[in-house]
Amino acid sequence: MIATPAWPPQSTPRLYVAGPLAPGSIRIDGTAAHYLGVVMRIKPGVPVKLFDDMTGEWLAVATSIGKRDLMLDVTERLRARDAVPDLWLCAAPLKKGRVDWMAEKACELGVARFVPVITRRTIVDKPNVDRLRAHMIEAAEQCDRTAIPEIADPIKLASLLRDWPADRTLFFADETGGAPAAQAMQVGSGVAAILIGPEGGFDSEERLAIRACPQAVGITLGPRILRADTAAAAAIAVWMASAGDWDR
Amino acid sequence: MIATPAWPPQSTPRLYVAGPLAPGSIRIDGTAAHYLGVVMRIKPGVPVKLFDDMTGEWLAVATSIGKRDLMLDVTERLRARDAVPDLWLCAAPLKKGRVDWMAEKACELGVARFVPVITRRTIVDKPNVDRLRAHMIEAAEQCDRTAIPEIADPIKLASLLRDWPADRTLFFADETGGAPAAQAMQVGSGVAAILIGPEGGFDSEERLAIRACPQAVGITLGPRILRADTAAAAAIAVWMASAGDWDR
Repeated sequence: MIATPAWPPQSTPRLYVAGPLAPGSIRIDGTAAHYLGVVMRIKPGVPVKLFDDMTGEWLAVATSIGKRDLMLDVTERLRARDAVPDLWLCAAPLKKGRVDWMAEKACELGVARFVPVITRRTIVDKPNVDRLRAHMIEAAEQCDRTAIPEIADPIKLASLLRDWPADRTLFFADETGGAPAAQAMQVGSGVAAILIGPEGGFDSEERLAIRACPQAVGITLGPRILRADTAAAAAIAVWMASAGDWDR
Repeated sequence: MIATPAWPPQSTPRLYVAGPLAPGSIRIDGTAAHYLGVVMRIKPGVPVKLFDDMTGEWLAVATSIGKRDLMLDVTERLRARDAVPDLWLCAAPLKKGRVDWMAEKACELGVARFVPVITRRTIVDKPNVDRLRAHMIEAAEQCDRTAIPEIADPIKLASLLRDWPADRTLFFADETGGAPAAQAMQVGSGVAAILIGPEGGFDSEERLAIRACPQAVGITLGPRILRADTAAAAAIAVWMASAGDWDR
């Protein structure tokens, strides 16, 4: 559903903190403290919502505001961490900017796990995992989410395929023409992954290796060329609509 | 399909020019001339691909390179302008950055027409149509496209609904819970539009007005809140997969 915060925008700040959260005092420092104390200018007694990607979302009340930190009193849990469909996004890291978009969209669309995959044509060897996680956290904070995709360690394509779990369908865009995406994804189980290559695509050896994986299902995302980040968001959306939880 | 240019990246520059193109001499100036002459450093005899969003894509050969302009000889048409499915994206302008992304993705995914819709909560009153078009042109140049979405004049929501064409289904995300997107979109004809609100959403009067439109079909994009640009790309992808041309 489209983000429709109450109008005017809600004044209750919403923040990710490392968990596990529990009732009692909590100290906030760093950029989170700056956001609450300086940007939002909260005062003692002001409510704040905290979530930890583990236990869920909690209500907290500011008790004291310092120069570089704050104390909050965590009072009650408002809701448990969302369940998300069991979809992985396995994607070659893209240039900064595009990979950030891809990480945000993966989080908003409810991907459970993001796996950076190193291929021969990958331009960025070492994805900045901290920055990807920061983008996902911001998306989760703004979109009222309690679950953030797990980010796996970067892995080479050959290793990913060699150890591929037998129960997980691996959808990949097949330039030689795969099955139409919506139909192929409807048929599968609720345990899947989408594999997206780098800006330059997979090379021919890599494509052969992917097709040789028993769980791989080649799909087509239509007759138009899509950038990698577009393809990722589009494929995730179609999977969510066809096999995920968009029918609830 | 994922963008998979030949590796190493093709050296034939690809450029949008105002049409109609035809065999014969053409003069290129401005930023396009800078791109070809200074960035790509093309020399006389080097081939260039030109497309005009009207007649299609043409082969041209550089004949002379000046300081601020170039002459090309347009020789043959390589292909006609792509046909795209008849889908409109009607969307409230978003903040710069997000609206740019939305315009790019709309172009890559094959939207025929982009209609900026002014609603009560729209933050940006006057969308920068030139900049949106520039983003779409860049996406088309990079993704080997020959068709760019038409950009309509900005229109207020009430006017859009009042004059809504009787033969075009209007899909909108309904927070009270519409039909699952994939199923609803499969049933419709190939003539449709997707309506996306601003960051703050539609207000209650606007939602009533949309629902009152005879062609309006409320859909759900799942249980998670999506930012407006994410919702646009996701809805377009699901429509293309369900009712568009992804099955070819």
